[in-house]
Amino acid sequence: MSILIQQATILTMKDTDSPFKGDIRIVGDRIAEMAPHIQAQPGDDIMDGQHKLAMPGLINAHQHTPMSLLRAFSDDLKLMDWLDRKMLPAEARMTPEDIYWGAQLSIAEMIRSGTTAYADMYIHMNEIAEAVTETGIRASLTRGMVFVEDDGGRRLQEAVDLVQRWSGKAEGRITTMYGPHSPYTCPVEPLREVIAMAEQENVPIHIHLAETKEEVVKIRERYGMTPTEYLEEAGMFEKLHVLLAHGVQLNRRDIGRLKGMRGGVAHNPVSNLKLGCGIAPITEMIAQGINVGLGTDGAGSATTVDMFEEIKAATWLQKLDYGDPTRLSAREVLYMSTRGSAGLLNLQDEVGVLEIGRKADLILIDLKKPHLQPVHELESLLAYSVNGADVDTTIVNGRVLMRGRQLLTIDEEELFRQVEVRAKRIVEGI
Amino acid sequence: MSILIQQATILTMKDTDSPFKGDIRIVGDRIAEMAPHIQAQPGDDIMDGQHKLAMPGLINAHQHTPMSLLRAFSDDLKLMDWLDRKMLPAEARMTPEDIYWGAQLSIAEMIRSGTTAYADMYIHMNEIAEAVTETGIRASLTRGMVFVEDDGGRRLQEAVDLVQRWSGKAEGRITTMYGPHSPYTCPVEPLREVIAMAEQENVPIHIHLAETKEEVVKIRERYGMTPTEYLEEAGMFEKLHVLLAHGVQLNRRDIGRLKGMRGGVAHNPVSNLKLGCGIAPITEMIAQGINVGLGTDGAGSATTVDMFEEIKAATWLQKLDYGDPTRLSAREVLYMSTRGSAGLLNLQDEVGVLEIGRKADLILIDLKKPHLQPVHELESLLAYSVNGADVDTTIVNGRVLMRGRQLLTIDEEELFRQVEVRAKRIVEGI
Repeated sequence: MSILIQQATILTMKDTDSPFKGDIRIVGDRIAEMAPHIQAQPGDDIMDGQHKLAMPGLINAHQHTPMSLLRAFSDDLKLMDWLDRKMLPAEARMTPEDIYWGAQLSIAEMIRSGTTAYADMYIHMNEIAEAVTETGIRASLTRGMVFVEDDGGRRLQEAVDLVQRWSGKAEGRITTMYGPHSPYTCPVEPLREVIAMAEQENVPIHIHLAETKEEVVKIRERYGMTPTEYLEEAGMFEKLHVLLAHGVQLNRRDIGRLKGMRGGVAHNPVSNLKLGCGIAPITEMIAQGINVGLGTDGAGSATTVDMFEEIKAATWLQKLDYGDPTRLSAREVLYMSTRGSAGLLNLQDEVGVLEIGRKADLILIDLKKPHLQPVHELESLLAYSVNGADVDTTIVNGRVLMRGRQLLTIDEEELFRQVEVRAKRIVEGI
Repeated sequence: MSILIQQATILTMKDTDSPFKGDIRIVGDRIAEMAPHIQAQPGDDIMDGQHKLAMPGLINAHQHTPMSLLRAFSDDLKLMDWLDRKMLPAEARMTPEDIYWGAQLSIAEMIRSGTTAYADMYIHMNEIAEAVTETGIRASLTRGMVFVEDDGGRRLQEAVDLVQRWSGKAEGRITTMYGPHSPYTCPVEPLREVIAMAEQENVPIHIHLAETKEEVVKIRERYGMTPTEYLEEAGMFEKLHVLLAHGVQLNRRDIGRLKGMRGGVAHNPVSNLKLGCGIAPITEMIAQGINVGLGTDGAGSATTVDMFEEIKAATWLQKLDYGDPTRLSAREVLYMSTRGSAGLLNLQDEVGVLEIGRKADLILIDLKKPHLQPVHELESLLAYSVNGADVDTTIVNGRVLMRGRQLLTIDEEELFRQVEVRAKRIVEGI
């Protein structure tokens, strides 16, 4: 199994590299060669890279994939109406099979828009793991745990099962994390229990943090501290790699507390905008050396999970927040969506950069489009003009998942049939 | 010449209509029939509307089309560096032929992303009018006039020539306006002269207003009033239809002064974000009954001129500004991008709504995509998930300009060849 991409414009995302013309050879699941010209070998699957840009696949650091079934179901509502009157009742009706198809729908959209790896927090994770296995994407899977009532240890057991059963599976594409849902749904006792378990097993944590002002108020009322302080007090940042989702309502002292943490923050600007949450202070986080990546959140709030929309939104918002167009440059936001997110998934040594020896997770973008011509600054085009539909080819772990806009591991007709029937049933009467 | 679109989901954008399944028959340049089922006639060009949404074409109310040649040339710079060090020197090198090709490039992108009419302010308008004529799009053309030095009346003469030579041309697709560039580039004497001329000839005006704080400061220093007061004092809002671009830095009294105006305000959120200008108070304008439409501004700032990006940005920003997800709903922002903008171009009786007797300016959107399934609320999908690449077919004035993503009036290969050489020459050494 070898692939030779010829004469693409290559953006490696290494710090010092400028885009250059060249060939990339993939052998098995890794990048084997990258050079101005590579000799084709017998059996190479040859891809024409002319007028195409090769770059690391985008990495979506925060997703709830099955919520694609609730896309465009409840927009323009107050956050609590959205959650209590629409999302929660609909989610309560989802069967494991629904979750399988919802995950596949999100994965189809991600592959089609250039995402090669992502982090998922949901329930019925076996079904999501099956969808990941079959579709060929790379994923960090987390069983989200809301400790609001006693369930006799079921949710914790499912989290443990996920980690034990699925870590390293699907040719190594699946990794796992523990997922205490958020400060406001996790009292201190179960939170400490999960942290102790995660430390003992050396498993990272994926958790929501400070998404809304209401959360900050709630935690202050309950514990007399900020959500960040609450997690810190529970010992979360001592040893663990932690993927913090959102971080919209962090104050300066919170950011100071996160300095030096392992892992970092997943910024989800579109979901934050759609729900009226605010702008996460990512410029300050980055200035403190905190690793910031990019995610979409679920399609229930973001509607689309096209990472190129998040890229645009992220850079627009920092420019707006400071009244300064130099903030969060094209280069910086592209870093966030590749290497930043790779660091959040604890995959910083394997993906996020095109380099010999790394996993072959990469995309080809077709530049021969009116909105991508002329080519002055490639990184500017990528940050401000490319959208998901410009992705021509998506390769994960050396396997071609999309080529010429055709999905190779997903039967779209069957997917749409399943999704239509299930989505209708789930929301009926809600 | 007749077209029959069969069994599409039709969103008319009339106030009271919900989306419904039906057929649309186009005869000549107008919508002749629209009903659940229409009998095909001999000679009808039949289009399959299954899994497609038919809606009015989007209308881009503020553009500088030739700036597409400077797309992604100078992002992430301070506004004055962007303008003085990059845009102005590059624009100064553009020949009339460059402007023709730059306009064609923007028009190609607009047709491909579902825009059927637009408003353009630039120089060398004969070349732009030629591009409009050949490509088949609908346009309101304006010769922008910067009165910073005496040019012996040349610019004013070109503006008059444009109006006289091109109004009503290209099967009626071209209309014209007068374009004093902005309060800060138009002293009161030439401004009054243009207003008098426009009133006498009953020609609308297209002008920039209050794009930046710096403009507000400059006008206050010069005249002791706001930019809006300055235009009002000059008599601009007495009789004329006026297309005001931006309106970012309007205060409450400015908005009060605009109440009851003919025309309205073109909101350009992406350009405003990219340049760090701020969020235009469009919720307040709409509350005062001021007509608000949507535009992209030139690709020099916006990078892409895909109106679906503006739709997303516009609704996101109002939700952000109020911390309230119910602000500027999907329906409202779709209204802005069709009927709102139609009102700005003074075409409110001809386009912006699908209705028997109106001009046949419409688009078909392919809904059979992972990011557009399932279909719960169509308008939510349109506002929050569709992007320009989902537009399958674009029809203007009854003529098919794109079908199955293939442009029918533009030779893309030749366009890309021309654009590459010209863009390189224009920016060399800048």
